[in-house]
Amino acid sequence: MAVRALRAAVAGASGYAGGEVLRLLLGHPGIEVGVLTGNSSAGQRLGGLQPHLVPLADRVLAETTAEALAGHDVVFLALPHGQSAAVAEQLGDEVLVVDMGADFRLKDAGDWERFYGSAHAGTWPYGLPELPGGRAALAGSKRIAVPGCYPTAVSLALFPAYAAGLAEPEAVITAASGTSGAGKAAKPHLLGSEVMGSMSPYGVGGGHRHTPEMIQNLSAAAGEPVTVSFTPTLAPMARGILATCSVKARPGTTAQDVRAAYEKAFDDEPFVRLLPEGQWPATASVYGSNAAQIQVAYDGTARRIIAISAIDNLTKGTAGGAVQSMNIALGIPEDTGLSTIGVAP
Amino acid sequence: MAVRALRAAVAGASGYAGGEVLRLLLGHPGIEVGVLTGNSSAGQRLGGLQPHLVPLADRVLAETTAEALAGHDVVFLALPHGQSAAVAEQLGDEVLVVDMGADFRLKDAGDWERFYGSAHAGTWPYGLPELPGGRAALAGSKRIAVPGCYPTAVSLALFPAYAAGLAEPEAVITAASGTSGAGKAAKPHLLGSEVMGSMSPYGVGGGHRHTPEMIQNLSAAAGEPVTVSFTPTLAPMARGILATCSVKARPGTTAQDVRAAYEKAFDDEPFVRLLPEGQWPATASVYGSNAAQIQVAYDGTARRIIAISAIDNLTKGTAGGAVQSMNIALGIPEDTGLSTIGVAP
Amino acid sequence: MAVRALRAAVAGASGYAGGEVLRLLLGHPGIEVGVLTGNSSAGQRLGGLQPHLVPLADRVLAETTAEALAGHDVVFLALPHGQSAAVAEQLGDEVLVVDMGADFRLKDAGDWERFYGSAHAGTWPYGLPELPGGRAALAGSKRIAVPGCYPTAVSLALFPAYAAGLAEPEAVITAASGTSGAGKAAKPHLLGSEVMGSMSPYGVGGGHRHTPEMIQNLSAAAGEPVTVSFTPTLAPMARGILATCSVKARPGTTAQDVRAAYEKAFDDEPFVRLLPEGQWPATASVYGSNAAQIQVAYDGTARRIIAISAIDNLTKGTAGGAVQSMNIALGIPEDTGLSTIGVAP
Amino acid sequence: MAVRALRAAVAGASGYAGGEVLRLLLGHPGIEVGVLTGNSSAGQRLGGLQPHLVPLADRVLAETTAEALAGHDVVFLALPHGQSAAVAEQLGDEVLVVDMGADFRLKDAGDWERFYGSAHAGTWPYGLPELPGGRAALAGSKRIAVPGCYPTAVSLALFPAYAAGLAEPEAVITAASGTSGAGKAAKPHLLGSEVMGSMSPYGVGGGHRHTPEMIQNLSAAAGEPVTVSFTPTLAPMARGILATCSVKARPGTTAQDVRAAYEKAFDDEPFVRLLPEGQWPATASVYGSNAAQIQVAYDGTARRIIAISAIDNLTKGTAGGAVQSMNIALGIPEDTGLSTIGVAP
Repeated sequence: MAVRALRAAVAGASGYAGGEVLRLLLGHPGIEVGVLTGNSSAGQRLGGLQPHLVPLADRVLAETTAEALAGHDVVFLALPHGQSAAVAEQLGDEVLVVDMGADFRLKDAGDWERFYGSAHAGTWPYGLPELPGGRAALAGSKRIAVPGCYPTAVSLALFPAYAAGLAEPEAVITAASGTSGAGKAAKPHLLGSEVMGSMSPYGVGGGHRHTPEMIQNLSAAAGEPVTVSFTPTLAPMARGILATCSVKARPGTTAQDVRAAYEKAFDDEPFVRLLPEGQWPATASVYGSNAAQIQVAYDGTARRIIAISAIDNLTKGTAGGAVQSMNIALGIPEDTGLSTIGVAP
Repeated sequence: MAVRALRAAVAGASGYAGGEVLRLLLGHPGIEVGVLTGNSSAGQRLGGLQPHLVPLADRVLAETTAEALAGHDVVFLALPHGQSAAVAEQLGDEVLVVDMGADFRLKDAGDWERFYGSAHAGTWPYGLPELPGGRAALAGSKRIAVPGCYPTAVSLALFPAYAAGLAEPEAVITAASGTSGAGKAAKPHLLGSEVMGSMSPYGVGGGHRHTPEMIQNLSAAAGEPVTVSFTPTLAPMARGILATCSVKARPGTTAQDVRAAYEKAFDDEPFVRLLPEGQWPATASVYGSNAAQIQVAYDGTARRIIAISAIDNLTKGTAGGAVQSMNIALGIPEDTGLSTIGVAP
Repeated sequence: MAVRALRAAVAGASGYAGGEVLRLLLGHPGIEVGVLTGNSSAGQRLGGLQPHLVPLADRVLAETTAEALAGHDVVFLALPHGQSAAVAEQLGDEVLVVDMGADFRLKDAGDWERFYGSAHAGTWPYGLPELPGGRAALAGSKRIAVPGCYPTAVSLALFPAYAAGLAEPEAVITAASGTSGAGKAAKPHLLGSEVMGSMSPYGVGGGHRHTPEMIQNLSAAAGEPVTVSFTPTLAPMARGILATCSVKARPGTTAQDVRAAYEKAFDDEPFVRLLPEGQWPATASVYGSNAAQIQVAYDGTARRIIAISAIDNLTKGTAGGAVQSMNIALGIPEDTGLSTIGVAP
Repeated sequence: MAVRALRAAVAGASGYAGGEVLRLLLGHPGIEVGVLTGNSSAGQRLGGLQPHLVPLADRVLAETTAEALAGHDVVFLALPHGQSAAVAEQLGDEVLVVDMGADFRLKDAGDWERFYGSAHAGTWPYGLPELPGGRAALAGSKRIAVPGCYPTAVSLALFPAYAAGLAEPEAVITAASGTSGAGKAAKPHLLGSEVMGSMSPYGVGGGHRHTPEMIQNLSAAAGEPVTVSFTPTLAPMARGILATCSVKARPGTTAQDVRAAYEKAFDDEPFVRLLPEGQWPATASVYGSNAAQIQVAYDGTARRIIAISAIDNLTKGTAGGAVQSMNIALGIPEDTGLSTIGVAP
């Protein structure tokens, strides 16, 4: 472990992504938690905003400025989309900046502009180490774009099928997410009274901003353009994503081919667990952990591969993926401060 | 309304389907609740088994025998799969028998044997009035096979696209169900501790028993064989099904074609509501009601039609569909004793 | 039933109390739903605000003004505290005004000013018919103050013990409420992400505004001043109140005395069910119904009476109690449009 | 830390308490997980029983016998009540035995027999270090009786008031528990369909087995006999206890006295956090952590002290308390392998 702990700042410490990265950093032996910043919450005690982070209860949030964030080895950005670039460019090239927002995820400027409606800020190394070439892109980097939570769940579930050449390039995906994926801003449709006991879709028909990111990842794995029809749904739970991903198998594909492709992809992965045949992922099993649980079935009648993943949207889907990628960038063991053990039941 | 109330018995009154049909029958002005029967619960007061059915609290369950069920105008069967036929054949042809189990849903004996592992009992008129020809098949019938909850949700969502010739014959479906769909038998994976905060799939890859029923309905609507890749998931809620159904559009299909097909299918339906464009179904909106809420989107990029339905699995998906079909069979107004109003929030 | 349906307006139709009273009025054979009004939601379709109220989906909300509410036989007010008086005085003495807010509940102006911080508007007949003298106060009245949800639950649970002279005048009460009791205004601590999986108290130590209303009811039943120590808690469910009420028994009290007092209080009540001994209330059993389920135990060791009630906070606790009281005021059968049957599971 | 890791066995590894102690031991640097045993689950892989414990997925459960448990430094017993004594006496005096069942908690044999209906096995040092004298009793011990989850929550909330002589000896307590407190055995009333959306009490009127344990702890703190009127309720969440504890203040008590007593009791405690005034505990804040959050209010009108605690019933309430007590018994830092940081939201 590092002789000297590195100091990490968190911009946007009052939100769910910021809170989760702090939860993980408090258990990371190589990191010392530095300055915390907020926007409307600047000046408040963290204890009132994130009452579960007991060791930081008396910390007071600073305003999110370059001055406040200066002097750290690592800066985590948990800011609204479109705000990371302005902060990042003031931080200096020697600082490791980990952006948990969307700004630097997409390679195609046109995609960015179409889905986010603003000018494209650029592209940073992508924080999903399990993808082909993923670790190499992160090693030693000073900038990391943490993937979206849905693209993490979906890309892990489907890239093995595409990388092995087993799937037709049209993916049909439905994912259920816990409400924390929608953030902490108070909106009527996110009230407990509205979401408890209810499942509902949103962004149906291609409009969700995570769609181009999935296309980018799966097309890279396939070596050809893949279309994605993605339907997200809101589930009555605080955390977790269950992604059900269906692709037509190429002619001649067998169940053994499919299993072999997934075993090859994940056998050496520290955080991805391909379940034994017959066992299915559940979001409860990865609650609060950095693990992804994956299972895949081949439906010979419909000739389709159905791959299903379960992650914690805030951990592996956001802050855990961020810490995992940070570890790689810093050259320390990838699982430092992270766990595959969920909090269940 | 009927001058004389008809007497209805319920076999299997201690379970969720039995309890729900009793809840509805208590509000039905043409029905008087007759004998209630159970298996292991015979001899017990209903008040201890179904404490929400206050007016029937002091009723005691009889054993499920032909003698106990004799002398009624209508008999609802809420029995485990495979037990309805033996009871039904003792009830006489003049009694209206409404089977909420699976026994008489499938037309193809081979499908039945493959999915249920026993001899096929036969095929009864199918209790989904909204399907093409659905009402005609039920009018005056003395036998009704109530559809499965998933097939109800899925068939309502997709038959308009198939009936209008807009969809390729390969349907990809993910559905989230509340836990009451799994019944009241105590199993560890259905404990509250296990399901709260968790989403998980089951029966992936073609194995769910409701799949051949969906194929039967959608193929009939399409006039050609349709394949169905169906993935059910268990959601942390007691009631409700949200079905996300995706089909490739035939070349030349437009968004207007799709909308028009759904408007035509549902404009005169008392219990199916095609939502205004931009509004999406939520299971909370149909909680305890016999309504189905439907929305459909056309994704031009992926050239797919995504149709989504929300129903209450116990009401429209089981007992409400049963009462609706009974009304048609009896020749009384179809919405008698039923409501489109959900209990929300 | 009334030869001519009476027209009822609802002011505040976009909120939870307004939505619930509409749900009930749609099933009331003597009422026709008239004008609906809102504040910030004026001009919007009800279908987007209350998607479960399908028959009213195309209604558009008017602004809450005396003009909009004029010309109705009954006006339900579901307004923020302090706004009812100004509206009510413009409505005319011949209109039945049912206030689901707090403004006219308290008899003591000092209590009102202390807990609500504004001038006391007055006192209207109190809409809890089950209290001693409750129905007489409502019969023929043109003004009704609907009780708070907690006072309904607590008063029903404890007034029999006080009315029978069995209890010392110090009540200790803890109640768990579903989140709909906190209303539809979006606040961070009411987000689904915050409330799912969590129990938390609020207003501890005597500060909750419903406390003086409980004191008023219990002191009236006791014929002497009763003190109330009330702790409300927020539970991870949309609806329901479970009130656990504990009082020291007067010397010489027996378990039989206690049981007899509760049987006497409730044996003829249409909406209150004293459960058989050994069975305990559950909020699920009264979901969406106007029933209250009550059980009482006598702990001889601690010499305490523990009375527990379960109600649906939006139905018996607000809108159902409002309709029940309206029925009495109008002289129509008290249970018209109301049910004791819960939606369960 | 220990030079050599100690080997710990867990008897009853398939249940909730066993799973939770394994979750914690996997993160404990001084412990190596040894043999795992079960009863009906013997012979099964842990991965199918506890899918969140990924590192132990391939472990197979042995039968619970003295032979299987031999050769360990520490043995955790997570067995049904009444089974620990027979196992413990075969384990040898040099083995540290930590019983998470009830068998050795009570000092009074009569209490045991009255509430558990069997012969009293004895009394072991009690694993609640925060009680007066608690650590001294555990230091160096080879036997630990882990408290019940409710007594942990209640004793922490109330002992400071009693130890400071501020409270009359009659405690009135209501507590809401997550369903995991009822264990993993499948019972109909614990099904997700039954508990979601519902609050219900049980064991009302003095019958809950945890009552004599609370009386034992509070009487010891008070130096006089304390009566406890305890009402447990089941809440729709998997984990967590919120205990609302009310006691009459002795004459002359001030709010300052109360605050001072609680500050004195908890200022040096590593796992108990007395919240700043105005902030209230929530079970979500301690989810998966060993922390207890406490707040206390003084209601001058009713002259009552209301103390409220939130714990995770499986962590601080069972397995975390077990590990904390084990650390003390072993003479290693008390917080080894434990955290005060909850998993929220």
